[in-house]
Amino acid sequence: MTAPLFLAVLLSSPHANGADTLHSWNGGPTRFAVIQFVKDVTTEGGPQYVPPSGRIAVFSHDGTLCPEQPVPVELAFILDRIKALSSRYPRWKTKEPFKSALSRNLTALASFGTRGMLELTAAAHSGMTTEEFESTVMSWLARTRNPRLNRPYDQCGLLPMLELLDFLRSSGFKTYIVLRGDAGFLRPWAEKAYGVPPDQVIGSSVRTRFEVRKGAPILVRRPDFEMMEDGPGRPGAFYRATGRRPIAAFGNSDGDLEMMQWTAAGGTRHLVLLVHHTNGGNEFAYDRKAMFGRLDKALDFGRKNGWTIADMTKDWNRFFTKTVK
Amino acid sequence: MTAPLFLAVLLSSPHANGADTLHSWNGGPTRFAVIQFVKDVTTEGGPQYVPPSGRIAVFSHDGTLCPEQPVPVELAFILDRIKALSSRYPRWKTKEPFKSALSRNLTALASFGTRGMLELTAAAHSGMTTEEFESTVMSWLARTRNPRLNRPYDQCGLLPMLELLDFLRSSGFKTYIVLRGDAGFLRPWAEKAYGVPPDQVIGSSVRTRFEVRKGAPILVRRPDFEMMEDGPGRPGAFYRATGRRPIAAFGNSDGDLEMMQWTAAGGTRHLVLLVHHTNGGNEFAYDRKAMFGRLDKALDFGRKNGWTIADMTKDWNRFFTKTVK
Repeated sequence: MTAPLFLAVLLSSPHANGADTLHSWNGGPTRFAVIQFVKDVTTEGGPQYVPPSGRIAVFSHDGTLCPEQPVPVELAFILDRIKALSSRYPRWKTKEPFKSALSRNLTALASFGTRGMLELTAAAHSGMTTEEFESTVMSWLARTRNPRLNRPYDQCGLLPMLELLDFLRSSGFKTYIVLRGDAGFLRPWAEKAYGVPPDQVIGSSVRTRFEVRKGAPILVRRPDFEMMEDGPGRPGAFYRATGRRPIAAFGNSDGDLEMMQWTAAGGTRHLVLLVHHTNGGNEFAYDRKAMFGRLDKALDFGRKNGWTIADMTKDWNRFFTKTVK
Repeated sequence: MTAPLFLAVLLSSPHANGADTLHSWNGGPTRFAVIQFVKDVTTEGGPQYVPPSGRIAVFSHDGTLCPEQPVPVELAFILDRIKALSSRYPRWKTKEPFKSALSRNLTALASFGTRGMLELTAAAHSGMTTEEFESTVMSWLARTRNPRLNRPYDQCGLLPMLELLDFLRSSGFKTYIVLRGDAGFLRPWAEKAYGVPPDQVIGSSVRTRFEVRKGAPILVRRPDFEMMEDGPGRPGAFYRATGRRPIAAFGNSDGDLEMMQWTAAGGTRHLVLLVHHTNGGNEFAYDRKAMFGRLDKALDFGRKNGWTIADMTKDWNRFFTKTVK
């Protein structure tokens, strides 16, 4: 890309040029790809125009919108909550997966797989009303920080991605977050952290029981999850929740591969962008061998197929908001 | 309510008075209740103010937004589709519930219950890609009319309810439709018919299979439904889909009772409104003994608890748009 071409794009479309919002992105092919995509789908009468109702963008959560190291935010919550509840359940000291959760042995926890995580999540996330769970989450958030970044988790959003969310929304996009974790955990704070309303957060969900207490109907969260699948199950889960196929997908791990392939095959102009964690100084550096957010197959596939890859070190100049509120 | 009080409300809040939109509603306590509710929750600084993010309104579909007689629209589709497919499946002529579907014996069909309906729905709604299903629905809609109203089904919306949807949205509400049927059937035309985007339509859903055909990922609809429950299951289904409790709920049958009770118990100013089908001349008259849309327990509960009840004959002066496009 030549500088004049890049400038021409910047100047040609005042409402969709990204110059106002994408400050934390370095000039270069990655930023250009984003701006060009938005320009193409928003140019009325242009050959790649997509009407606003079709401007659907989906973002993975952990590792795409926020760091997922040293542990993803929901796992941090679960571990804290298991610890807090453990005085009520003395047996957990010797019973797996609770024992490893209490000793924060992540390698052992990983060995129990999805089933182990479901057991921990059920213990941490159920047995209370929906409103009680939301309060529990919010009060935990208010007193907890990512230990390495020393920031509250709802202020750990990666600044370039927050700018991208804003840029897309101001260009008529509806932005969604998908995550493997419990949507009910992220929904209470997704609007503040990412500008995404609760019903645009799609993830695993708990089944509830309708009860009438003192004359007032409530919903009690049951230890019964419907899991959001990674990989090939994710496009179907997104479709079931929204009835749409996205035209833009943002991910950072192998679990996002099929969602991004499906987005790329929708028959309209599309953007698929992988976030590559290459900056151990400002954030974390990991890819093919990570315990959380492994990026291996998707990186090869993306490179081979010309996907946009955001290399944090090359493409970003700031990582987080300056101040923490 | 006195005329001067009513006029005072009309004149006091230019953006939330409903006078611009609720033309098909007769002046009187029902229309007044709607307008007063909207005024209360939108008056900043007022004691019952609800910020826009909390303005969640949920509408049942069949019988609330459109007629459900002589049969609900999705059942009309299913019956037509079973007939169209029957040449491929000669056994259906003698095998229930297909036999009764082919002879349009609704009483016999009802006797097969949910299981029978699931079997018919699976046959009519699966075995094709999501895009193929949408085309099938849209081409059926384009050539089919409600036999008694002689209108295309996507132009059978009850005009007073369409006005109500508009009024709420222009007052900052997010409007949702819930239905027991397959959300995938209504989503392709909900925006045109009701101004509700596909992801705000919540209903039963089919599971899909991710496949790669000729290099392009697609989703194939499987004959595997997750049913939206009526009654006590509905609040939980709405909560799972949105993470919210509504402050306004509109229904017309016993299946809507718990959703409306749950809405009424949310702790904020709320509106629960039952549509009572009392007008056999302009629409259809039915309640306690109807095969579709039975309104019995909910009518008693609503009357006892002071819910707003829209009596079509008393409260409405027009039922449908004048012209059909």
